[in-house]
Amino acid sequence: MAHRILVRTFLIDVPSDVHDRTLDFWATALGATIRSTRAPEYHFLDDASPSNRIVVQDIGAGPARIHFDIHTDDLDAEVKRLLDCGATQVARHDHWIVMQDPAGLPFCVVWALGEYRPVAEREDFERRAKTIG
Amino acid sequence: MAHRILVRTFLIDVPSDVHDRTLDFWATALGATIRSTRAPEYHFLDDASPSNRIVVQDIGAGPARIHFDIHTDDLDAEVKRLLDCGATQVARHDHWIVMQDPAGLPFCVVWALGEYRPVAEREDFERRAKTIG
Repeated sequence: MAHRILVRTFLIDVPSDVHDRTLDFWATALGATIRSTRAPEYHFLDDASPSNRIVVQDIGAGPARIHFDIHTDDLDAEVKRLLDCGATQVARHDHWIVMQDPAGLPFCVVWALGEYRPVAEREDFERRAKTIG
Repeated sequence: MAHRILVRTFLIDVPSDVHDRTLDFWATALGATIRSTRAPEYHFLDDASPSNRIVVQDIGAGPARIHFDIHTDDLDAEVKRLLDCGATQVARHDHWIVMQDPAGLPFCVVWALGEYRPVAEREDFERRAKTIG
Protein backbone atom coordinates (compact mmCIF):
# COMPACT_ATOMS: atom_id res chain seq x y z
CA MET A 1 0.00 0.00 0.00
CA ALA A 2 1.23 3.45 -0.82
CA HIS A 3 2.45 5.72 1.93
CA ARG A 4 3.90 9.22 2.03
CA ILE A 5 7.33 10.82 2.53
CA LEU A 6 8.66 14.35 2.95
CA VAL A 7 12.24 15.67 3.10
CA ARG A 8 12.37 18.97 4.97
CA THR A 9 14.57 18.47 8.06
CA PHE A 10 18.34 18.91 7.81
CA LEU A 11 20.61 18.37 10.82
CA ILE A 12 24.06 19.84 11.42
CA ASP A 13 25.68 17.27 13.73
CA VAL A 14 28.64 18.55 15.72
CA PRO A 15 30.74 17.21 18.58
CA SER A 16 30.29 18.75 22.04
CA ASP A 17 33.61 20.60 22.09
CA VAL A 18 32.56 22.90 19.23
CA HIS A 19 28.78 22.68 19.66
CA ASP A 20 28.08 26.04 21.29
CA ARG A 21 30.08 28.16 18.90
CA THR A 22 28.88 26.20 15.89
CA LEU A 23 25.27 26.72 17.01
CA ASP A 24 25.89 30.46 17.46
CA PHE A 25 27.69 30.61 14.12
CA TRP A 26 24.84 29.07 12.14
CA ALA A 27 22.21 31.18 13.89
CA THR A 28 24.05 34.34 12.88
CA ALA A 29 25.10 33.04 9.47
CA LEU A 30 21.55 32.09 8.49
CA GLY A 31 19.76 34.95 10.23
CA ALA A 32 17.97 32.42 12.42
CA THR A 33 16.57 32.29 15.92
CA ILE A 34 17.80 29.51 18.21
CA ARG A 35 15.00 27.53 19.81
CA SER A 36 15.62 24.95 22.53
CA THR A 37 13.67 21.70 22.39
CA ARG A 38 12.68 19.13 25.00
CA ALA A 39 15.79 17.13 24.07
CA PRO A 40 18.82 19.17 25.16
CA GLU A 41 20.97 17.89 22.27
CA TYR A 42 18.68 19.46 19.62
CA HIS A 43 18.35 23.15 18.84
CA PHE A 44 16.10 24.40 16.05
CA LEU A 45 17.27 27.29 13.86
CA ASP A 46 13.93 28.96 13.21
CA ASP A 47 13.63 30.86 9.93
CA ALA A 48 17.03 29.64 8.70
CA SER A 49 15.73 28.22 5.44
CA PRO A 50 12.19 28.80 4.17
CA SER A 51 10.01 25.68 4.41
CA ASN A 52 12.81 23.59 5.93
CA ARG A 53 13.61 22.72 9.52
CA ILE A 54 17.34 23.24 10.21
CA VAL A 55 18.58 21.62 13.43
CA VAL A 56 21.94 21.70 15.21
CA GLN A 57 22.57 18.45 17.09
CA ASP A 58 25.20 17.86 19.78
CA ILE A 59 26.48 14.36 18.97
CA GLY A 60 28.96 14.13 21.86
CA ALA A 61 32.06 12.76 20.17
CA GLY A 62 32.84 11.99 16.55
CA PRO A 63 33.27 13.90 13.33
CA ALA A 64 30.88 16.69 12.32
CA ARG A 65 28.49 15.90 9.48
CA ILE A 66 25.18 16.91 7.95
CA HIS A 67 22.31 14.47 7.55
CA PHE A 68 18.66 14.69 6.68
CA ASP A 69 15.49 12.95 7.76
CA ILE A 70 12.88 11.27 5.60
CA HIS A 71 9.54 11.89 7.34
CA THR A 72 6.92 9.23 6.71
CA ASP A 73 3.46 8.19 7.82
CA ASP A 74 4.40 4.48 7.68
CA LEU A 75 7.77 3.68 9.24
CA ASP A 76 7.79 -0.05 8.52
CA ALA A 77 6.75 0.31 4.89
CA GLU A 78 9.27 3.08 4.28
CA VAL A 79 12.17 1.22 5.89
CA LYS A 80 11.36 -1.89 3.86
CA ARG A 81 11.18 0.19 0.68
CA LEU A 82 14.57 1.82 1.39
CA LEU A 83 16.21 -1.53 2.22
CA ASP A 84 14.93 -2.79 -1.13
CA CYS A 85 16.50 0.29 -2.79
CA GLY A 86 19.93 -0.54 -1.34
CA ALA A 87 20.03 1.21 2.05
CA THR A 88 21.25 -0.55 5.18
CA GLN A 89 19.74 -0.28 8.65
CA VAL A 90 22.09 0.97 11.38
CA ALA A 91 19.90 1.38 14.47
CA ARG A 92 16.22 1.17 15.36
CA HIS A 93 14.46 3.42 17.88
CA ASP A 94 10.75 3.60 18.70
CA HIS A 95 9.89 6.38 16.27
CA TRP A 96 12.90 6.65 14.01
CA ILE A 97 15.38 4.40 12.26
CA VAL A 98 18.98 5.24 11.40
CA MET A 99 20.01 4.03 7.93
CA GLN A 100 22.93 4.44 5.53
CA ASP A 101 22.99 5.08 1.81
CA PRO A 102 25.31 3.12 -0.57
CA ALA A 103 28.07 5.70 0.04
CA GLY A 104 27.85 5.14 3.80
CA LEU A 105 26.08 8.42 4.56
CA PRO A 106 23.72 8.20 7.53
CA PHE A 107 20.14 9.40 7.29
CA CYS A 108 17.06 8.88 9.42
CA VAL A 109 13.55 7.72 8.68
CA VAL A 110 11.20 9.34 11.18
CA TRP A 111 7.55 8.96 11.98
CA ALA A 112 5.94 12.20 10.84
CA LEU A 113 2.73 12.07 12.81
CA GLY A 114 3.73 11.46 16.44
CA GLU A 115 1.84 13.68 18.86
CA TYR A 116 5.18 14.77 20.36
CA ARG A 117 5.95 16.48 17.04
CA PRO A 118 5.07 20.18 16.73
CA VAL A 119 1.60 20.66 15.25
CA ALA A 120 3.02 22.89 12.51
CA GLU A 121 5.32 20.05 11.42
CA ARG A 122 2.48 17.56 11.22
CA GLU A 123 0.38 20.04 9.25
CA ASP A 124 3.31 20.68 6.93
CA PHE A 125 3.59 16.94 6.32
CA GLU A 126 -0.11 16.70 5.48
CA ARG A 127 0.23 19.63 3.08
CA ARG A 128 3.46 18.73 1.27
CA ALA A 129 4.24 15.00 1.60
CA LYS A 130 4.24 12.92 -1.55
CA THR A 131 2.83 9.47 -2.13
CA ILE A 132 5.40 6.79 -2.85
CA GLY A 133 5.83 3.03 -2.91
CA MET B 1 24.65 47.75 2.69
CA ALA B 2 22.21 44.92 3.15
CA HIS B 3 22.16 42.01 0.74
CA ARG B 4 20.15 38.80 0.48
CA ILE B 5 20.69 35.09 1.13
CA LEU B 6 18.73 31.88 0.53
CA VAL B 7 19.40 28.29 1.63
CA ARG B 8 17.69 25.85 -0.72
CA THR B 9 20.41 23.72 -2.37
CA PHE B 10 21.69 20.57 -0.65
CA LEU B 11 24.44 18.43 -2.18
CA ILE B 12 25.13 14.75 -1.59
CA ASP B 13 28.86 14.48 -2.34
CA VAL B 14 30.08 10.97 -3.11
CA PRO B 15 33.31 9.46 -4.42
CA SER B 16 33.37 8.13 -7.98
CA ASP B 17 33.48 4.46 -7.02
CA VAL B 18 29.98 4.58 -5.50
CA HIS B 19 28.60 7.54 -7.44
CA ASP B 20 26.36 5.76 -9.92
CA ARG B 21 24.61 3.50 -7.47
CA THR B 22 24.29 6.28 -4.89
CA LEU B 23 22.70 8.53 -7.52
CA ASP B 24 20.28 5.76 -8.50
CA PHE B 25 19.58 5.03 -4.85
CA TRP B 26 18.60 8.60 -3.97
CA ALA B 27 16.51 9.02 -7.09
CA THR B 28 14.45 5.97 -6.16
CA ALA B 29 14.49 6.68 -2.43
CA LEU B 30 13.19 10.22 -2.87
CA GLY B 31 10.88 9.55 -5.80
CA ALA B 32 12.95 11.93 -7.90
CA THR B 33 13.90 12.29 -11.55
CA ILE B 34 17.60 12.43 -12.39
CA ARG B 35 18.54 15.42 -14.52
CA SER B 36 22.00 15.82 -16.05
CA THR B 37 23.57 19.27 -16.02
CA ARG B 38 26.22 20.95 -18.16
CA ALA B 39 28.81 19.92 -15.55
CA PRO B 40 29.09 16.11 -15.69
CA GLU B 41 29.83 15.84 -11.96
CA TYR B 42 26.44 17.29 -10.96
CA HIS B 43 23.07 15.57 -11.26
CA PHE B 44 19.89 17.23 -10.05
CA LEU B 45 17.24 15.14 -8.30
CA ASP B 46 14.14 16.91 -9.52
CA ASP B 47 11.11 16.79 -7.21
CA ALA B 48 13.09 15.12 -4.42
CA SER B 49 12.21 17.72 -1.79
CA PRO B 50 9.60 20.44 -2.31
CA SER B 51 11.14 23.90 -2.74
CA ASN B 52 14.71 22.58 -2.41
CA ARG B 53 17.28 21.64 -5.03
CA ILE B 54 18.88 18.28 -4.15
CA VAL B 55 22.08 17.53 -6.08
CA VAL B 56 24.32 14.46 -6.23
CA GLN B 57 27.94 15.45 -6.87
CA ASP B 58 30.76 13.13 -7.98
CA ILE B 59 33.74 14.35 -5.93
CA GLY B 60 36.28 11.91 -7.36
CA ALA B 61 38.05 10.67 -4.25
CA GLY B 62 37.46 11.34 -0.56
CA PRO B 63 34.80 10.60 2.01
CA ALA B 64 31.10 11.08 1.25
CA ARG B 65 29.39 14.03 2.91
CA ILE B 66 26.45 16.38 2.60
CA HIS B 67 26.87 20.12 2.28
CA PHE B 68 24.64 23.05 1.44
CA ASP B 69 25.01 26.29 -0.45
CA ILE B 70 24.20 29.79 0.69
CA HIS B 71 22.92 31.64 -2.38
CA THR B 72 23.51 35.37 -2.32
CA ASP B 73 23.21 38.43 -4.55
CA ASP B 74 26.47 39.91 -3.17
CA LEU B 75 29.31 37.38 -2.93
CA ASP B 76 31.92 39.71 -1.44
CA ALA B 77 29.62 41.13 1.22
CA GLU B 78 28.35 37.69 2.19
CA VAL B 79 31.83 36.15 2.44
CA LYS B 80 33.02 39.06 4.57
CA ARG B 81 29.96 38.71 6.82
CA LEU B 82 30.55 34.96 7.26
CA LEU B 83 34.25 35.44 7.98
CA ASP B 84 33.22 37.94 10.66
CA CYS B 85 30.83 35.30 12.08
CA GLY B 86 33.69 32.79 12.45
CA ALA B 87 33.81 30.92 9.15
CA THR B 88 37.07 30.28 7.32
CA GLN B 89 37.64 30.50 3.57
CA VAL B 90 38.91 27.33 1.89
CA ALA B 91 38.91 28.10 -1.83
CA ARG B 92 37.74 30.88 -4.13
CA HIS B 93 36.26 30.36 -7.59
CA ASP B 94 34.75 32.95 -9.92
CA HIS B 95 31.17 32.56 -8.82
CA TRP B 96 31.37 30.56 -5.59
CA ILE B 97 33.53 30.35 -2.50
CA VAL B 98 34.17 27.24 -0.40
CA MET B 99 34.10 27.95 3.34
CA GLN B 100 34.11 25.97 6.59
CA ASP B 101 32.05 26.40 9.73
CA PRO B 102 33.63 26.27 13.24
CA ALA B 103 33.16 22.49 13.31
CA GLY B 104 35.11 22.13 10.04
CA LEU B 105 32.05 21.41 7.87
CA PRO B 106 32.41 22.68 4.32
CA PHE B 107 29.72 24.83 2.74
CA CYS B 108 29.61 27.06 -0.32
CA VAL B 109 28.59 30.64 -0.90
CA VAL B 110 27.30 30.95 -4.45
CA TRP B 111 26.26 33.85 -6.63
CA ALA B 112 22.50 33.47 -7.04
CA LEU B 113 21.98 35.60 -10.12
CA GLY B 114 24.46 34.35 -12.73
CA GLU B 115 22.89 33.97 -16.16
CA TYR B 116 24.21 30.40 -16.30
CA ARG B 117 21.80 29.55 -13.45
CA PRO B 118 18.39 28.14 -14.38
CA VAL B 119 15.79 30.90 -14.66
CA ALA B 120 13.55 29.12 -12.16
CA GLU B 121 16.36 29.22 -9.59
CA ARG B 122 16.90 32.95 -10.05
CA GLU B 123 13.17 33.58 -9.79
CA ASP B 124 13.02 31.47 -6.65
CA PHE B 125 15.81 33.57 -5.16
CA GLU B 126 13.93 36.78 -5.92
CA ARG B 127 10.79 35.34 -4.36
CA ARG B 128 12.22 33.77 -1.20
CA ALA B 129 15.61 35.26 -0.31
CA LYS B 130 15.90 37.20 2.94
CA THR B 131 17.70 40.44 3.62
CA ILE B 132 20.66 40.17 5.94
CA GLY B 133 23.77 42.04 7.02
